[in-house]
Formats: sequence, C-alpha cells, structure tokens
Amino acid sequence: MLMIEGGVCAAKGFLAGGIHCGIRKNKAKRDLALIISEKRAAAAGVYTQNLVKGAPIYVTMEHLQDGYAQAMICNSGNANTCNVDGIDIAKGMCALVEQHFHIPAADVIVASTGVIGQPLSLEPIASGMPALAKSLGIDGAAMAAEAIMTTDTMKKEIAFSFEIGGTICHIGGMAKGSGMIHPNMATMLVFVTTDVAITPQMLQKALKEDVVDTFNMVSVDGDTSTNDMVSILANGFAGNVLIDGEGEAFDGFKAALNAVTSHLCKAIAKDGEGATKLITCSVAGAANKETARKTAKSVVCSNLLKAAMFGADANWGRVLCAIGYSGAAVDVTKVDVTFASPAGHLPVCIQGAGIPFSEEKAKEILSMEEVEVQISLHAGESSATAWGCDLTYDYVKINGDYRT
Amino acid sequence: MLMIEGGVCAAKGFLAGGIHCGIRKNKAKRDLALIISEKRAAAAGVYTQNLVKGAPIYVTMEHLQDGYAQAMICNSGNANTCNVDGIDIAKGMCALVEQHFHIPAADVIVASTGVIGQPLSLEPIASGMPALAKSLGIDGAAMAAEAIMTTDTMKKEIAFSFEIGGTICHIGGMAKGSGMIHPNMATMLVFVTTDVAITPQMLQKALKEDVVDTFNMVSVDGDTSTNDMVSILANGFAGNVLIDGEGEAFDGFKAALNAVTSHLCKAIAKDGEGATKLITCSVAGAANKETARKTAKSVVCSNLLKAAMFGADANWGRVLCAIGYSGAAVDVTKVDVTFASPAGHLPVCIQGAGIPFSEEKAKEILSMEEVEVQISLHAGESSATAWGCDLTYDYVKINGDYRT
Repeated sequence: MLMIEGGVCAAKGFLAGGIHCGIRKNKAKRDLALIISEKRAAAAGVYTQNLVKGAPIYVTMEHLQDGYAQAMICNSGNANTCNVDGIDIAKGMCALVEQHFHIPAADVIVASTGVIGQPLSLEPIASGMPALAKSLGIDGAAMAAEAIMTTDTMKKEIAFSFEIGGTICHIGGMAKGSGMIHPNMATMLVFVTTDVAITPQMLQKALKEDVVDTFNMVSVDGDTSTNDMVSILANGFAGNVLIDGEGEAFDGFKAALNAVTSHLCKAIAKDGEGATKLITCSVAGAANKETARKTAKSVVCSNLLKAAMFGADANWGRVLCAIGYSGAAVDVTKVDVTFASPAGHLPVCIQGAGIPFSEEKAKEILSMEEVEVQISLHAGESSATAWGCDLTYDYVKINGDYRT
Repeated sequence: MLMIEGGVCAAKGFLAGGIHCGIRKNKAKRDLALIISEKRAAAAGVYTQNLVKGAPIYVTMEHLQDGYAQAMICNSGNANTCNVDGIDIAKGMCALVEQHFHIPAADVIVASTGVIGQPLSLEPIASGMPALAKSLGIDGAAMAAEAIMTTDTMKKEIAFSFEIGGTICHIGGMAKGSGMIHPNMATMLVFVTTDVAITPQMLQKALKEDVVDTFNMVSVDGDTSTNDMVSILANGFAGNVLIDGEGEAFDGFKAALNAVTSHLCKAIAKDGEGATKLITCSVAGAANKETARKTAKSVVCSNLLKAAMFGADANWGRVLCAIGYSGAAVDVTKVDVTFASPAGHLPVCIQGAGIPFSEEKAKEILSMEEVEVQISLHAGESSATAWGCDLTYDYVKINGDYRT
C-alpha cells in the first residue's frame, strides 16, 4: 500500500470541486463541495444513531437504498437540521445536481454541516452551481475538502494505491469534524471514493465492519452529532475482478479502506475543537474485543483526563477511574498503565496501584503533540485503540458562542 | 417543614468537628472531619458504581452490613484509592476513632476524597486526634463541612425540622463535590444525620429511592468518581414512633430527606469546578419516568450545551441534539424547548423546530446565575429534573494541573 496525493480524486474516474456560494458570511471560506463519479458507482453509507437526524441524512438513506450513487454534494455553515422545510431543501440540493450535471437526483448523496435549527436557503446553492461546475476537476479534491470544514482548522484528506489480484486500485477520502464528535455506529462527515470494482453488498459490509474500530472509536467531546455520515462510492474503474464475496480481494480492500479511515480518525481527533494534542488510548490484553473498545473509549472521553493531558499532568488515577466506570467487566487490580510519546514511555501504574515515577520525565512525555495512554488488562488477547484530544480553554471559547 | 441552622448537628444527639491535621499542605484548609451520634444509630449508605472503588468504600460497606453505625470520619486531600495498603489505612482510621472516642471501629463510616493513587499516611490523622476531639461539639457542623471540601469553593450544608405524627424531628446534611461528578446509583460524598426513629431497612429504602431522583441526576463533568458515597445516620432521639414500614410517617421522612438531598444536589452542581452558573433541566410530558430522567440528564451532561450556557448563547439545537442521543425513546418532532431564569422565559423550539426569538432577551435570560432548560415531550405525564453547570475556562484550568 502506498500513500499518494489526490484525496477523493486519487481514484480513477472521480472529479471534485468546492466553492464559496454564500451560506457562510466569510467570503474566503468555501462552503459548497461536490464529488462526481464519471459513471454510476456502488455506494454505501453509515449514519448517526442520534434520534434527531439532519434532513440530508434521511434523503441520503433513501437514495442509497438501491446500493448505487454517482455524486456527493455537501454544504457547510448550516446543518439543515430541525427545520420544518429541511427535507425539501435537501431534495432541492439533489435536484440542482440533476439539473446542472445530468445525474439523477436519486443518485446523489447529500450532506449538510453547521448550525442546527436555522433555515437553509437553496438560493445561494442554486446561484453557485455554475461556479461549482467550473471548479470541478481531477485536481479539485483539496477544494472539496476545504468546503466541508466548519470549526476544523485543517483540511483532512488522504489517499492510497494498493493492489488487488495484480490490479492497481486507488482509494481516497476526506473528512470534516472537530466538535460534536462522539460517533455511535456512524460518524462525522466522511466521503470516500475508490475505483475498486465491488458489489454494493460487499461495499456496505466492508464499511460497516470498518467503522466499529475507526470512527466509532473517536471522541472529541462526547456529543453525538445529528448529521454524522460516512459514505463511499466505488466506481470499478480500476478494472479488478469484481469483489462479490469474502476472500483475499475483500480483505485487501478492507485493509486499504482502514488505512484511509484510520488516518482520517486521527486527523479528526487531533483537530478536535481547541485541541493542542492527539490522545491515543491503546488497550491490550482484554478478555474480548468489546471490553477493549469500551475501556479505550471511556479513557479518551474523560473530561478530567483530557484536562490533565492539556496540563501535561500525569494524573493516572483518572485513567483508572475512567476504566472503572466504562461499563466493561475489568479486574482493576490487574491493570497496568503507561504514558508514552515520541519523548519516551513511562509506566505509572502496575496491577491497579501507583508506582514511583519521575514527574519531570512524565511532563516531558505528556508535553508532546501526540500522547499515548497504554493500558494492559492482563485478561486475554483482545486489543483496541481509541482516539481523542485534550480539553482546553479554546474548546470552551469556540463553543461559548458558536453561532455568532 | 422549616429550614433551620446547624447542618449535620441540627438533629438531636449529633456532634461534629473538623480540623487541619496535615494531609493538605495548606494549613488554612481543614482536612479531617468527624461526626458522632451520642448513641448507636440506624445507618444506610449508597455507593459509587465505579468498578474502581476507594478503599474506604469497601470498609464502610462492611461496617454498614448490620444496619447500624455511630460515627463518620472523612479526610480530604487524598482519596485513598488505588493504593496497595488502602484497606489497612481505612481500617486504621476507624481504629483511631475507636481508640479516641470509644466507638467500636465496626460502627464507623469512613470516607476519603482527593487525589487518586497517592499513598495516604495514617500519621497526621493519628496525631490530629486530640485536636479533633477538642473541635467536636454541637456547633461543629460548619467545621466538618469545611474539612471535607476539595476543589469546592463553598461549604455545602443544610437542615430542616419537620413533624412526624406530632413529633418534631430534624434532619441535616453536608456534602462535598465539585469535579468528577456524574453519580450512577450513588454519588459524591454526602453525610446526613437525623434524629428520626426508623429501622435500618426503611432507612436504606428511603435513601435508595431518593438518590434516583437527586444525586443520580447531577452531573458536573460526566466522570463518575471512585469514592462516591451517601450515608445517613438516624439515632431516634426525636422520640417519634419507630418507622418500620411504609405509610404517612415514612412518606414524611422521605419528603424531609428529599429537601436535604435536593438542596445539596443544587449546591454541588452550582459549585461545579469552574462553574459560573447552575443549569437545571426540567423535563415534563414524558411517557415514563425513565425517559424523563434520561432526557434531562443527557441535556445537562452535554459539553456543547454547557459551553453555550457559559457564553449565554441560546443554541437550542444542542438541546435537541442531546435529547436525540440520550438513549430515551422520544418523538423529536413533538419536543418544545424554553429557556428560563429569573430574567424571564423564552420559548425557542416548538415541535422540534426553531421559532423566531429575541437574541437580546435570550442573552439576558441566560446571563443569570441560575438557568433552566424546560423541555416538554408531549408524550405522557412523567417528569424529572437534572442539575448541572456550565463548562468554563476555569474547569480546564483547575483540572489541567490538579495534583500540584
């Protein structure tokens, strides 16, 4: 597998673009993104489990029922959620794609991200269509990745080339997500494109299995968004033998998909609202996978640990505390905890009890931009990883007055 | 029912005291509290559900198994949790009470609160015993309430007098709790004393039923502590007919208990680490009690809503979002939301969709020290209330380097 340039345009047969159409007041900020496949593609999606769902989620669910799609349109600056005319507006966005790009509205994936509960007008989107068409190209991935950003401070995109049965394939993705991040069986906004030939059923299976260990293991602030969605288009342009069941080719595709999604997970956590560092929690020696996941996620979700990490304070008691209330059946008298980073690694707790350690060394390790909390449960063979970030003054600042 | 002075000494036959014994470096801060009943009392407790439990929790559980106790000792500055010798130290604290106050160690409720995972020495506690004895008196409640404080900025105590079958009874309580507050079937540290005559069984029943709607409905930061405990002593000095079953007297006692616990809940939430305001979420019209509770608690737990409240930003979409991921079965298209405070009340969402409102009025309402989020689910008759606070720069500051 090889990391390559090109984001969502790295796979053959995909075009992307992004413009400022006027949903956001800041004219320097793109707010409308489009991705198009040159032909109809197998498509799959996973969605937020929040009972309050953005209108675009319902429309996309309907459009993906047949397992195929050809375009993805997404605006930032307004979530089109909790609005009485939300469904009409989301359908209107798809209709605009049909009108301007000759792709059936029913083959359009639609998404919106931004403030909840403010009416979204179709007008700027409609008037932006000619400019959007002009921006569309095989070099447009970065513009699209920018256009879906809200409080994100950096655009998030990645691509890989990989081989399936001797055929070179490509996969790329982009994501937005910085706050209201605590996915549950779905996630923030992620758009993945690939030229692999795969059936819609196997594509959905691959995506569903992947998110359990990727996007569902990320938390910035414990708030599950109303508009979370991961969607993927696979247009088959790579020319590999169609993947229509399990086996080596499917596993190869899943590994490539996981390379994209893991990268985007870390990028989202690291760019969490106000965050100064990425916190990775790795749990090993769990009795089963579910225990490993619950434990890892509980630790990266703890506000107290997040604040301690901001202060580079080796307060490992908060790690134990978060393990204890995770809901996982853990024998806490067997738990070891180590803090690690590029500056070194330092065991701080053995068998559930503290051991003497150098506070100076701990400070050095925890002052790095990427910090790992390593937990050994000594109860089995399962492991899991969760990603989060520190809790900072800026998180409070950003969210104290988000709407203005 | 009448609010009275005296805290945990308001009930007849109780003495309390508090001193600085040296667990904390700051000599101006009391760190050891004692409450004593003049005779053995019916006793009950509820405890944290965190799998990691402080050593004192285990010792107290053992001591309360027979339903009786006579004293409560509690230190602040160290949680005596995740220490290899924790149980010995907790038992040592009870033995010191036996030695100096002639109360059997098995009748002592012991608690510790502070940093997790740092060894607690018995030495300062032992040398503090003479001073503790000297501080003990019927006017010592405030000293005891001070001595259990950690990051609390104000002491929390309350008392009421009430009648049971013509007999005047008294009940008082004190609490500590500011961070790591997200009780689950138990809570922060709360000590309640009453002179009511009641059997241990009915006392435990009253307490257990009460916490579901009081301490279990408070959240400061979503972190369930390892040392949470609510305990109560009832020494019978009031001389009422012994409460040994359900009925009017039991209901009267429960109402008095609830007056104490509700007051302490609000005090804890309002004094949440870094908090500038109390946030009360009242849910009405729920299909059942559980739905009402889940909905209310999810709202006061949302970091995003808490940050918005800090900024006095009427971002009601975050209320809807938190209802949606609460896990409660709610028809979100029926939900009404109103913001209220002493400055007025302002409906902002009707039937799940936003309505126009004055941003100026909203700012005025949300700038008060006590703010209420009123939610109507229009699905039934059940209601619930949860208490929380805003998320502020100071929360991050306090927890960024708690140990130093």
